[in-house]
Amino acid sequence: MSLGKPIWQATRKFLQSILSEDNPELRDSKELRTKAFVPQKQAKLHLPVNIGHYSDFYASKEHASNCGIMFRGKDNALMPNWLHLPVGYHGRASSIVVSGTDIARPSGQRSPGKGQPPVFGPSVKLDYELEMAFFVGTGNKLGERIPIQQTRDHIFGMVVMNDWSARDIQAWEYVPLGPFLSKSFGTTISPWVVTLDALEPFLVDGPTQDPTPFPYLQEKGKTAYNINLEAKMKPCDASTYKTLTRSNLKYMYWSISQQLAHHTVNGCNMGTGDLCGTGTISGPGDDAKGSLLEITYNGRDEIDFGNGIKRLFVEDGDEIVMTGYCQGEGYKVGFGECCCKIVPTTYRE
Amino acid sequence: MSLGKPIWQATRKFLQSILSEDNPELRDSKELRTKAFVPQKQAKLHLPVNIGHYSDFYASKEHASNCGIMFRGKDNALMPNWLHLPVGYHGRASSIVVSGTDIARPSGQRSPGKGQPPVFGPSVKLDYELEMAFFVGTGNKLGERIPIQQTRDHIFGMVVMNDWSARDIQAWEYVPLGPFLSKSFGTTISPWVVTLDALEPFLVDGPTQDPTPFPYLQEKGKTAYNINLEAKMKPCDASTYKTLTRSNLKYMYWSISQQLAHHTVNGCNMGTGDLCGTGTISGPGDDAKGSLLEITYNGRDEIDFGNGIKRLFVEDGDEIVMTGYCQGEGYKVGFGECCCKIVPTTYRE
Ligand SMILES: [Ca+2]
Ligand SMILES: [Ca+2]
Ligand SMILES: [Mg+2]
Ligand SMILES: [Mg+2]
Ligand code: NI
Repeated sequence: MSLGKPIWQATRKFLQSILSEDNPELRDSKELRTKAFVPQKQAKLHLPVNIGHYSDFYASKEHASNCGIMFRGKDNALMPNWLHLPVGYHGRASSIVVSGTDIARPSGQRSPGKGQPPVFGPSVKLDYELEMAFFVGTGNKLGERIPIQQTRDHIFGMVVMNDWSARDIQAWEYVPLGPFLSKSFGTTISPWVVTLDALEPFLVDGPTQDPTPFPYLQEKGKTAYNINLEAKMKPCDASTYKTLTRSNLKYMYWSISQQLAHHTVNGCNMGTGDLCGTGTISGPGDDAKGSLLEITYNGRDEIDFGNGIKRLFVEDGDEIVMTGYCQGEGYKVGFGECCCKIVPTTYRE
Repeated sequence: MSLGKPIWQATRKFLQSILSEDNPELRDSKELRTKAFVPQKQAKLHLPVNIGHYSDFYASKEHASNCGIMFRGKDNALMPNWLHLPVGYHGRASSIVVSGTDIARPSGQRSPGKGQPPVFGPSVKLDYELEMAFFVGTGNKLGERIPIQQTRDHIFGMVVMNDWSARDIQAWEYVPLGPFLSKSFGTTISPWVVTLDALEPFLVDGPTQDPTPFPYLQEKGKTAYNINLEAKMKPCDASTYKTLTRSNLKYMYWSISQQLAHHTVNGCNMGTGDLCGTGTISGPGDDAKGSLLEITYNGRDEIDFGNGIKRLFVEDGDEIVMTGYCQGEGYKVGFGECCCKIVPTTYRE
């Protein structure tokens, strides 16, 4: 990854050629095929890279608006800065795990109500956030920046991400310095990285940005990726999954190029393996809400899974599966599954 | 560092023995001495470890109160959560540099006034934060925690830290997810790590904590370290330093043990080389304010350096030097200098 885009492209080309049905080299050699392939069912997938540092953005206008309306009312839904910059924050890289890894419910402090003293215990508002994230392939030196025209040469590729969030812990802890323990107990990513080159056929126009961003955030041409996203849930006592979110990365207001240009405009150095989350990708319409916070209106409206099974948030044993794919003509580009089961808290006095 | 406390202690004991004036082994062998020592002036100091992840707390009640009064008035100075938990946030580890490294002024967005559109340019409110920070020596697995009684076995040692902060960028960007680019352009630490064993003689009683913290934050015995801290500044056009802050780590409300116990109570995994900042260490009294934000009341009151030189914030070419030491009977334990010069922004359109 640190070798840079020309090497990424050459490697991709070689793989495409060697795996092509027109190329007999692998196709006709059982010996080589046995050496090169592992049956999918036997493959154990690991984190694709040693993740350096991790930041998370908040770049979906629908998500920011849904949350803002809930907590501050319709007139103050978007903070004054939101339309001027891609809001982001530093996250915890150590607790990012690959799809299929169980995550334990976090314990922590929460407020039972305004003015009341906090209580301590396992989170009672455990939520998912349907996101994508991009890996930085090659970075920049401290004090320098990555101009927006060059960002796509630095971004290696993307994954689907579930930014697990404990809403009760978050609501209590986050003033004034942002989310901390409400996010750092585990974050799930899909197991392989789809390179930007593979995504290029799916570039589409991004949303209109008004007001016009500062020059360092201005980009030309197509800026958004048409990637279908889905989140489904299987409660522990249910036998099937129910799709809760159908969204698309193309709805995102601030592009990944804008995110990287912004992240480095102050001279912050990015490195190979750094990960940047997009923030929850909600879209227009009720079925495109990217978190239970939005879907249940912060625990007000139950989701009915049938057979008497209902949920406001994620309970122990529940599973969330996220998927993403691009629809080409006669083919799909997929991201693998981003799945995770929540297990009981491990906290003991 | 990853080998654990028994090895840290054995190594310290060996170094103390071999460097003792009673031990002839090094003392009487010019050859060995030449091999073992580098003249201080020729030594180039590097970052002491490969820093993994970085979090910063906000654990000084005086600092939180000074800031709170400025921005929210006396009655709402401390947020409702502040007395219940050590507030912290994830920081950017990549931009932490060793003392003596110049840092470029960050460029970014700031608001010229409420309701007005933001402007872009080099920060005009560049500030220092006098902090200390501790390195995690051995960590914990994801989903587990470090109980407060065990924290001092996991903490390797401490450094002095200047958490450079661009107040104008911070004020505009930080809602609702916390500081981001206002902090990630550079953070300076002193060059060597003083182990907790070396600091043990300087343990003193911590401040009274009211309300009583949750059990996971309760500790017995002496919990604070008596470490004298100082920040001085040399404006680019001045010839001498002026001390701006005289404080002490013992003033800090939430101890480093409480910080580490809190950080892991949700199951967040810490690793060897992770760094945790204490937050700005202000103390009682006007000369113990740990940042220019507090000293100048957010740019209202100028600091007079004589010869017509005045400052509200840090200008290009200005230098900040921070020091810390413990005063023993007839000896001092020092942390080396944490110094840094601010150079002009490197941002070009
Ligand atoms: Ca998120
Ligand atoms: Ca700080
Ligand atoms: Mg997370
Ligand atoms: Mg900093
Ligand atoms: Ni990191």
